Amino acid sequence: MKLVIANKNHSSWSLRPWLLLTEFGIPFEEVLIPFGQTFDDPDWKRAIAAFTPAGKVPALIDGEIRVWESLAILDHVADTRPDLAIWPRDPAAKAMARSISAEMHAGFQALRSACPMNLAWVHPPRDRGPKVAADVARIAAIWNEARARFGAGGPFLFGAFSAADAMFAPVTARFTGYGIRPDDVSGAYCEAVQATKGYVSWRMAAFAEPWIIAEDEADEPVITDHRSFLSRSRVSP
Amino acid sequence: MKLVIANKNHSSWSLRPWLLLTEFGIPFEEVLIPFGQTFDDPDWKRAIAAFTPAGKVPALIDGEIRVWESLAILDHVADTRPDLAIWPRDPAAKAMARSISAEMHAGFQALRSACPMNLAWVHPPRDRGPKVAADVARIAAIWNEARARFGAGGPFLFGAFSAADAMFAPVTARFTGYGIRPDDVSGAYCEAVQATKGYVSWRMAAFAEPWIIAEDEADEPVITDHRSFLSRSRVSP
Ligand SMILES: N[C@@H](CCC(=O)N[C@@H](CS)C(=O)NCC(=O)O)C(=O)O
Ligand SMILES: N[C@@H](CCC(=O)N[C@@H](CS)C(=O)NCC(=O)O)C(=O)O
Repeated sequence: MKLVIANKNHSSWSLRPWLLLTEFGIPFEEVLIPFGQTFDDPDWKRAIAAFTPAGKVPALIDGEIRVWESLAILDHVADTRPDLAIWPRDPAAKAMARSISAEMHAGFQALRSACPMNLAWVHPPRDRGPKVAADVARIAAIWNEARARFGAGGPFLFGAFSAADAMFAPVTARFTGYGIRPDDVSGAYCEAVQATKGYVSWRMAAFAEPWIIAEDEADEPVITDHRSFLSRSRVSP
Repeated sequence: MKLVIANKNHSSWSLRPWLLLTEFGIPFEEVLIPFGQTFDDPDWKRAIAAFTPAGKVPALIDGEIRVWESLAILDHVADTRPDLAIWPRDPAAKAMARSISAEMHAGFQALRSACPMNLAWVHPPRDRGPKVAADVARIAAIWNEARARFGAGGPFLFGAFSAADAMFAPVTARFTGYGIRPDDVSGAYCEAVQATKGYVSWRMAAFAEPWIIAEDEADEPVITDHRSFLSRSRVSP
């Protein structure tokens, strides 16, 4: 199985299936095609077209089968590995996991465009307007409901790590990166996702990436700049 | 099973699970809560909150289980009815069906906002700009690829009617409503979807609805106005 992704620092959608496969210990080959200077660089578009007709990352090549779109990749993996609880096994938990994953897949545009994922930066908290606030409130409500109803068996939305956590992992990165902590349950949940081995190793690799994408770089003060910290201290992860 | 939807004339997302359940002959109770004058009317929001924490339609109530988001509802129905080929059975076809359904669920924003679904109107063709053209081209490519690779057994994307057709049904309505016919394969596919019993009865009910939503009404010349035709001729479907 080959998973095609882009920059770990910038590609929030790529993180989802990568984290799922990693956390479930499913072996795969990583194919990282770095974006150009912009997200619509024609050379990048040409390179990616060899793997997916939609021309976006992530994409999964599983033998003869090609799957694209983060959510569809998670579902394909769940189909091919019925021995693993990729989705929660309890029908009510699974229905909620699917609903919130689809909600994430289609929604939260205001948060996504106001707070692009860029793991290199941590910004101080600030008011980002009513639409972002509404997205944050809905996400916090989702997390609180899942944790309260189904979270007893572990620190994740449905207890053990599942596809729903993979879907929301990039949002936890945005919350951390932009100083958003709606409540303690949400804060603890973000910490749990970011403490997984998979997330830690993705983030270390992201910090070490040299690539810059102008439209997603900080245009406001930051409190942490991991990229320049790493280059100053010559940590090689 | 209760399916909560809004105006048949306007609610493109509601059409998907309604059509799936109808085409597969799965019995359900329809709960139609008409939008107010706008999509964010507070009375509508309050009414819908009783059924779904996301505050949007469609939503499915299956005993104790609540599911929302069109794609998650289709998946829930597929889980509970493994006897039916809601997704195509062939793994490669299923992987493609899932990928394009997720692509539809998250994408094509330009087409969706330039061409809101409103079954009452048919507009003459006109150029709607490069982003809409790109969306139309990608959709036509998806339909052509599915029909060529997997469409042998019938007129739908994967031969027989499946969840993927339910996901794309509102796009066929937009294509028809705005005079978009990228090629013959796409045109024939739109006709096949719109000839299903489910689609025909949804459309007849839509034509008879009295509700107007200002932001989705035609602000340009139309060649057919089903709503005024029906009220003039007093057809009661
Ligand atoms: N809905 C898709 C979105 C994929 C997506 O937009 N990926 C971005 C990178 S994170 C991309 O490939 N952008 C390049 C482009 O749109 O040309 C998914 O879930 O996989
Ligand atoms: N991604 C959702 C979208 C649902 C959606 O946006 N529904 C519209 C009606 S077609 C709605 O409820 N709008 C009211 C609102 O957003 O307040 C799905 O697939 O079900």
